[in-house]
Amino acid sequence: MEHLKKVKLSEIDITSGFWAERQKRNAEVTVYAVRDRYEETGRFGAFDFDYTEGSDKPRPHYFWDSDVAKWIESVAFILAKRPDETLRAQVELLIDKMEAHQDENGYLNIYHTVIEPDNRFRDRDHHELYCLGHLIEAGVAYYNAVGSDRLLKVLDRYIDYVIRVFTVEKSTGFTSPGHEEIELALYKLYETVPDEKYKKLADFFIEERGKDLIPIGAWCNAKYSQNHLPVREQRTVEGHCVRANYLYSGMADAARLNGDEAMLSACRALFGDETEKKMYITGGVGSSHHGEAFTVPFDLPNDTAYTETCAAIALAMFANRMKDIDIDSRYADAAERALYNGVLSGVSLDGRSFFYENPLEINLADHGRHTSVRDGDRLPITERQLNFSCSCCPPNITRLIADLGEYFCSYDETRVFVHQYASFTARFGGVGLEMQTDYPCGGKIALKISGAAGKTLYLRIPGWCGAFTLNAPYRMEKGYAALDVPSDSFFAELTLEMKPVLTAARPEVRADAGCAALTYGPLVFCVEAADNDFILSDLRLPENASFTASFDPYFGAPTFTAQGSVTEEKDLRALYFPLKDLRQRRVTARFIPYFGFANRGPSDMRVWIRV
Amino acid sequence: MEHLKKVKLSEIDITSGFWAERQKRNAEVTVYAVRDRYEETGRFGAFDFDYTEGSDKPRPHYFWDSDVAKWIESVAFILAKRPDETLRAQVELLIDKMEAHQDENGYLNIYHTVIEPDNRFRDRDHHELYCLGHLIEAGVAYYNAVGSDRLLKVLDRYIDYVIRVFTVEKSTGFTSPGHEEIELALYKLYETVPDEKYKKLADFFIEERGKDLIPIGAWCNAKYSQNHLPVREQRTVEGHCVRANYLYSGMADAARLNGDEAMLSACRALFGDETEKKMYITGGVGSSHHGEAFTVPFDLPNDTAYTETCAAIALAMFANRMKDIDIDSRYADAAERALYNGVLSGVSLDGRSFFYENPLEINLADHGRHTSVRDGDRLPITERQLNFSCSCCPPNITRLIADLGEYFCSYDETRVFVHQYASFTARFGGVGLEMQTDYPCGGKIALKISGAAGKTLYLRIPGWCGAFTLNAPYRMEKGYAALDVPSDSFFAELTLEMKPVLTAARPEVRADAGCAALTYGPLVFCVEAADNDFILSDLRLPENASFTASFDPYFGAPTFTAQGSVTEEKDLRALYFPLKDLRQRRVTARFIPYFGFANRGPSDMRVWIRV
Repeated sequence: MEHLKKVKLSEIDITSGFWAERQKRNAEVTVYAVRDRYEETGRFGAFDFDYTEGSDKPRPHYFWDSDVAKWIESVAFILAKRPDETLRAQVELLIDKMEAHQDENGYLNIYHTVIEPDNRFRDRDHHELYCLGHLIEAGVAYYNAVGSDRLLKVLDRYIDYVIRVFTVEKSTGFTSPGHEEIELALYKLYETVPDEKYKKLADFFIEERGKDLIPIGAWCNAKYSQNHLPVREQRTVEGHCVRANYLYSGMADAARLNGDEAMLSACRALFGDETEKKMYITGGVGSSHHGEAFTVPFDLPNDTAYTETCAAIALAMFANRMKDIDIDSRYADAAERALYNGVLSGVSLDGRSFFYENPLEINLADHGRHTSVRDGDRLPITERQLNFSCSCCPPNITRLIADLGEYFCSYDETRVFVHQYASFTARFGGVGLEMQTDYPCGGKIALKISGAAGKTLYLRIPGWCGAFTLNAPYRMEKGYAALDVPSDSFFAELTLEMKPVLTAARPEVRADAGCAALTYGPLVFCVEAADNDFILSDLRLPENASFTASFDPYFGAPTFTAQGSVTEEKDLRALYFPLKDLRQRRVTARFIPYFGFANRGPSDMRVWIRV
Repeated sequence: MEHLKKVKLSEIDITSGFWAERQKRNAEVTVYAVRDRYEETGRFGAFDFDYTEGSDKPRPHYFWDSDVAKWIESVAFILAKRPDETLRAQVELLIDKMEAHQDENGYLNIYHTVIEPDNRFRDRDHHELYCLGHLIEAGVAYYNAVGSDRLLKVLDRYIDYVIRVFTVEKSTGFTSPGHEEIELALYKLYETVPDEKYKKLADFFIEERGKDLIPIGAWCNAKYSQNHLPVREQRTVEGHCVRANYLYSGMADAARLNGDEAMLSACRALFGDETEKKMYITGGVGSSHHGEAFTVPFDLPNDTAYTETCAAIALAMFANRMKDIDIDSRYADAAERALYNGVLSGVSLDGRSFFYENPLEINLADHGRHTSVRDGDRLPITERQLNFSCSCCPPNITRLIADLGEYFCSYDETRVFVHQYASFTARFGGVGLEMQTDYPCGGKIALKISGAAGKTLYLRIPGWCGAFTLNAPYRMEKGYAALDVPSDSFFAELTLEMKPVLTAARPEVRADAGCAALTYGPLVFCVEAADNDFILSDLRLPENASFTASFDPYFGAPTFTAQGSVTEEKDLRALYFPLKDLRQRRVTARFIPYFGFANRGPSDMRVWIRV
């Protein structure tokens, strides 16, 4: 097993370009937009722990703690890079409240304090440990950002309580949480505050999974929460996609921290199953609304795709852990695919509104006109939302964008890995990196590496890249161009050939049969009715279609046009007619980046185009 | 409005060929298979009216009366053509029981006698009037077949009771039935026993629809049972497809019997909406399992198609009424399309098992492997069934096949119409017809018409037919070749050009974009994994594909092979890859008639093929 060290947020700054602009908007707009919704909906107020049944206050849901925790974590990542007294004060106030309302025994959960105090840790689907996990991640991030360990101290007391009731008294109603998250959070805490008890508890939850088999029911079957097998025996990704990838992320941490090769082997198989059989081209996962879940291999319907923003984020999290323990560019490839597409589509271009679901096809005619519309209750919503009653996605994307630097580099004594490309500066383990690029708009990458003479620099050659040039001798290793750094101040110049490419799916993917998607570097494109005055499913591109690029500041990315054809409808009357009677007319189709869909109002949209 | 007379079952015999063989199997196998299932499931036993809660007898469902009624009707149509003392004795016994157990006030319904006697005519979705309607159709058929009016007398008393409580006392919980059927049945009875009270009651039910608006709920919204508008204002087909087409059939009868042009106009619009926007190429209707219903225009998904056998039958019934009041070949075209495809697929080739749903695509991998499979609970079943808990389809197809002659011809004083082609003899209104053809295997049709000198013979030129020859001068009228019959014994020779044709759908039909279906005459074809060792969705045919025909006695119809291409998978590893890397290999694809799918066990299947 490899043991690369991840370059941490404190060691890297994204300085300009595509992601820097999004980080700026995230810190200035999005984190405030989420805050405002949380104030309006009573999520912050709930931390007063004063809800009573029948009162005017909004009734807390049992996952509200986690929503706010992710927001605190987002703020912490932002504070790590820029002061913001408003946000910091609000976090301090929340910590005050948690300190004030924590039980004497350490327990801390709003819902099970004000509504069901007698049912603590009785229902494994009540997200108490999930909420704790997110609070731990928030506490760690806040500690790392501003040095305050107040929240960590509160949580340490809670964790001691959890250790007691789950592992000593064994008095709880379940042993593995219904929604994973606490595992990866405890490992993260352990790496910040190296107390073995944290790792031991995380190990406990990981090991218990698949042992406490529960009866199979409509909403609570074993696969839904990856409880169908002990974790090392799991080889196919199953069930709720966010739960699954949070578990796999925790398993990857466990593999690394415990040197557990069997666990790594399971993680490797799970990642392969997920990215080679069950992942959309956007990096989205979750083919079904039923259980927000994986289904069967190659079942990737576009219009009823669930592809929750959180699931794409969770896949990126899993991939970002795997890249450091099992060197292979496929991990950073998958993270990149998700980040630029299925994750980024979850937030509007102006940073103010969100998508929970990120389908790859929208047909407005199917929506809402009848109660009996085919799967009408399951088709994704088509208009970006300011908030959600289940509000996991908005603060999840907020924290991810703020923390994005942690996806870029890793290293050990002899090697420096660059996994993602953007203009950034980093300093870690005596090495300095300074990258300049307009990626993903272009593929020219200039990298100054200092303090690394004698080490080997590994530059990921993305899976989408057919050709590249590098200004120094290199060898390919597991998808990385590896070059021996000749001097303590070396300039590497990497040029990734970046051009519009029609991309196909394996023939097993029925939903994409006979179609291709336009990609350009890591970006996936779509056509929207907002730009194209024809039936989108009717568009056909020649296999050798020629694409004209133009940079569009609205999207902050290139857009493309191409000549295609659609059916000439002038003489059509019948529903069915001989194919030979079909006439085509030429049209110019405009392609925009998938991440920017539905920013100009609801619109028909399509990623996969007939060829 | 036209007023053609339909040639009745008693006036026509299908003598040999495609349908004659199916009628034989129907009379010798299928009607007995249904009988056996009805004995096993207690449907016949329920007519003892002795079920009590907690007893060992199967609990009657409130639609069981209708299942048995359709079986009686099937027997009657069979008895009209061939003696069968076994079947006749069983019908007589059922009539004995109905006579014995009819309430003194005339009421006759098993469920609401033995289980909910206090809730008669309280719940409009409890199918009491639907059951009565089917009993009426059975009574009429039995009377026409064997001359016995025992059942009609029982029903006359029941109808008097219905007239009293619905129209005089107005003591019922609803005024228009939740499931239409009684309307068309009462009109049919009126035409057999011309008592005005029958027509008046049918008119009442037709007119009440859309007036007694009910609150919109999940399973009982107004459109579900066509209750959203008064019938003459309805212009788009809505809701449950069987209910809808039974209503429209009744409306067509009402238009004819009352000379109601506004009603005809509604029927015409409804038929256009149904067949030009919401009908599968198989003549199936019902795009959604939700409510077994129509959805929005051009929403015709293939794998989740509901397309119930009963709905295709009901469309044929509606079309068969319209052809006599609004001369246009589109009606008989639609009936033909349904009969040869979406209806006939509902019964197995051996006549012993059935499909309720008739999808146009089956992918076994999607079925049953997970509880969370995408729409797993809604995908059609893939194996033909001996019986169904809701058993409307088996006796519906049985009665239709036995009664098929009623779809063939109609006439008035000066005109004779031939709407469907098969070898048959008919005698009506002084005219004799004798047709010889191997249709639909071939397009040569020889017709001897006698006693018709001076009349005009109208031969339908099917919509699928691109060219034809006729051995006499003719003019085209509304899709019919009209020729003046020159002598009292005239031989017409019609040859319909019949060849394999790739058929496309309008571009609005997203599910079929970029695809074509193979058709040959009225037959639609499919590919099955049983014959084809490749991923069916991956098959691509050249637009000018060449088809080789061979008659297959197993299907009793032609089958075809053609050269196509599929993806060469040898070097594929990634889920997504540049289209230009895709290599094709040639394959020979075998096409079988759609009506014969899933007769060799569950199998992947597909109608629409990429071109």
